[in-house]
Amino acid sequence: MSLRTIESKDLAYFKSILDAKNVLTDEENLYKYSHDETEDISVIPGVALKPESKEEVALILKYCNKEGIPVTPSGARTGLSGGAIPLKGGVNLSMERFNKILKIDAKNYQVTVEPGVIVEELQNTLKAEGLFYPPDPASKGSCFIGGNLSENSGGPKAVKYGVTNEYVLNLEVVLPNGEIIWTGANVLKNATGYNLTQLIVGSEGTLGVITKAVLKLLPHPTQDLLVLVPFRSAVQACEAVAAIFNAGIVPSGMEFMERDAILYTLDFMGDSTISVPEDIEAHLLIEVDGNNKDVLFGEIEKIMGVLDQFDTDEVLFAEDQSQKDKLWSIRRKVGEAVKAQSIYKEEDTVVPRFELPELLKTVKSIGKEFGFQSVCYGHAGDGNLHINILKGEMTDKQWNDDLGKAIRKLFEKVVALGGTISGEHGIGLVQKSYMDIPFGKVELDLMKGIKGVFDPNGILNPDKVLK
Amino acid sequence: MSLRTIESKDLAYFKSILDAKNVLTDEENLYKYSHDETEDISVIPGVALKPESKEEVALILKYCNKEGIPVTPSGARTGLSGGAIPLKGGVNLSMERFNKILKIDAKNYQVTVEPGVIVEELQNTLKAEGLFYPPDPASKGSCFIGGNLSENSGGPKAVKYGVTNEYVLNLEVVLPNGEIIWTGANVLKNATGYNLTQLIVGSEGTLGVITKAVLKLLPHPTQDLLVLVPFRSAVQACEAVAAIFNAGIVPSGMEFMERDAILYTLDFMGDSTISVPEDIEAHLLIEVDGNNKDVLFGEIEKIMGVLDQFDTDEVLFAEDQSQKDKLWSIRRKVGEAVKAQSIYKEEDTVVPRFELPELLKTVKSIGKEFGFQSVCYGHAGDGNLHINILKGEMTDKQWNDDLGKAIRKLFEKVVALGGTISGEHGIGLVQKSYMDIPFGKVELDLMKGIKGVFDPNGILNPDKVLK
Repeated sequence: MSLRTIESKDLAYFKSILDAKNVLTDEENLYKYSHDETEDISVIPGVALKPESKEEVALILKYCNKEGIPVTPSGARTGLSGGAIPLKGGVNLSMERFNKILKIDAKNYQVTVEPGVIVEELQNTLKAEGLFYPPDPASKGSCFIGGNLSENSGGPKAVKYGVTNEYVLNLEVVLPNGEIIWTGANVLKNATGYNLTQLIVGSEGTLGVITKAVLKLLPHPTQDLLVLVPFRSAVQACEAVAAIFNAGIVPSGMEFMERDAILYTLDFMGDSTISVPEDIEAHLLIEVDGNNKDVLFGEIEKIMGVLDQFDTDEVLFAEDQSQKDKLWSIRRKVGEAVKAQSIYKEEDTVVPRFELPELLKTVKSIGKEFGFQSVCYGHAGDGNLHINILKGEMTDKQWNDDLGKAIRKLFEKVVALGGTISGEHGIGLVQKSYMDIPFGKVELDLMKGIKGVFDPNGILNPDKVLK
Repeated sequence: MSLRTIESKDLAYFKSILDAKNVLTDEENLYKYSHDETEDISVIPGVALKPESKEEVALILKYCNKEGIPVTPSGARTGLSGGAIPLKGGVNLSMERFNKILKIDAKNYQVTVEPGVIVEELQNTLKAEGLFYPPDPASKGSCFIGGNLSENSGGPKAVKYGVTNEYVLNLEVVLPNGEIIWTGANVLKNATGYNLTQLIVGSEGTLGVITKAVLKLLPHPTQDLLVLVPFRSAVQACEAVAAIFNAGIVPSGMEFMERDAILYTLDFMGDSTISVPEDIEAHLLIEVDGNNKDVLFGEIEKIMGVLDQFDTDEVLFAEDQSQKDKLWSIRRKVGEAVKAQSIYKEEDTVVPRFELPELLKTVKSIGKEFGFQSVCYGHAGDGNLHINILKGEMTDKQWNDDLGKAIRKLFEKVVALGGTISGEHGIGLVQKSYMDIPFGKVELDLMKGIKGVFDPNGILNPDKVLK
């Protein structure tokens, strides 16, 4: 079906469903809904709509499906792959008014939540009842749970607790034709038909619009310990990651930060309390958690034993909660701080954990070949390395013409190492031209076939994920 | 496409691909491949084929796809929902020669395995290297990993460690048209396109044939403790399950056995060392595991504290490995023992954990209404209750005409409680007529659409899962 732009009759229809204040067409708002946190990309939608109920979402989708109007669902617009950018114009369907925690079922360790709830707010509300929802992307203070579901977000805790999809039991979803479904059941195990739940998670708003989620919870761990370990060799820091796991320890956080990542961030935050000696190439931020402090001290001791075989400087042991908060805050600010340095592109590569040193060497060698500076950081425990490529001194020609080749070369190596091109940011807009690297035509055709089953008219987040 | 039976030209073709000894048409073998462990159902295939390589599987599927010959993949044929029964005749594609553990990647905590490896053999091989693959269905001594993937199997450890799908990183799959794909990457987090991996897991051999799996492993826990707790009230035993979790403990096993389940099993095993007092209605078998015995003793103590509020008899604390083995062996034999009593039907209901007492009461009340005896047991920690309905004194008319109504009534209640109709056995053949209870037409049409994308000619395990 060929897609069309917004006309005045469409606005009249939307205003018949929603209050006028939730049908936004003014320049300022259209700009606001034209972008997420993905580089400097911006596409103005024809209208931004803010429904509040699944019925309103259903009416909007049904209408747009009939009329051939593109609809791009959006959340907090903190995404890093352009998933919420209304690439083809039309409707930006903002889910921000779906902001309620509907039911905390402590007895069953479940929560039912609307997609527009901020992740950290959900976590704090649950923690007050001793409940734990682990996935915690760096943007947890602003991102929505719906975006986390759509991108299958990770975060530091994923190394021990897994990523978003491991916590999703059941989803209420509005399909492009306006039908409303539940994908599964509120249970911990399910062998009842195809796994529609896991198909929707990570589908980046291209198959349906999530209006409710039932999430699995855990008892909240009561204790944690945190250390910051400086390494004289960045490659050795990567090597230490696998060595710690292979000593039988599963940390609850295992974050890697290159020298520049931490320096830019300290500068960005105006923090002068942590000094980074000249000869330090990288840091690991390592957390263990549980319910027994002695056990945790034992684990830290064991980790220190493993680290003896590497060339490290003095370890910083976080002494109290405020120091822990500061260290985590530094880690969370890295992305923002590095991006403040220069025009940039961010890649979200992931490989089997033991291949991390090889991945880092590859990044640096390709950088040398193509003349770019890179700053690497990320969730090393999962093999998930964020690579920020800075434009710095590169010419526009190098940046625009050659960088794609460099990224392709990098991704080919990532896939050869058993990895893939996005660990937690998604494909969205900015990575879709590389999807032929992890997948062949047959796999991509299956995905297109699935898209066709859910969205035969192709109105929902068009031209994302798949070309 | 209309499907047809096997003709002599087909056998000639199969013999051009496989050695004659792997193209089975004799009566004894055709009977062997006509059934799994599902009740007394048996459908004779036209031929049983035993390929050894993905290329052979691809040639067979491509040919059958062109010719319209039904193909039913099978493993160890231990399934309980009829997934491996060649309902429409044609080819039974036995994966038993895919029996190799291809690569143990201890550094990355991964294993690459063929689908015909017996689960317990895989677990033992890995354990010898300190590695842990948790999913362990009762049939682990005979079932194949491929069957576990196809049915998304659980087992006792699922309560702490999750079910099969949580351990699958990447699958090599042959599609009905003979194309060979990999579904994902060998990584712990993945936000790269639709989740084909999770779509194949649990699809019961209806979308493609798995020829390799890359599985995630954990460090093997070094310690465990096991107790058997007798309850004077079966409903209280169910209530205790949620109470233990709500005290913040996550046991590694939490199994429920009704009085008859344990009595039949002790009798079946000829074991007289465990006595069940007259007034005991049910038992919980509770395991905790980890790496620190003191911590585990503390957890058991905490559990005993929770149990104080229930009416229990003397707790049996397993003193050594042989007693642990015996208790687990009793639990594993329950299904077989109960089924030896009578003609039976087994249901595999699952509800949110806290709803378990209500589910048990419903089973008993429906049994009273329809005049059947039921024996219940299962993975109470997951809310997964196996319900064995015994024919016993029921007339053939009651058994054949009324039981379906009773099961429908039970499943409707299960779904109303937030649960679903199969936790780990799958839908296969015997539950497909109830799929309208957990799902509406829209969800079922999506599933049919997905089936159409993978298998447009409908040759692969036809008429399973979906009607």
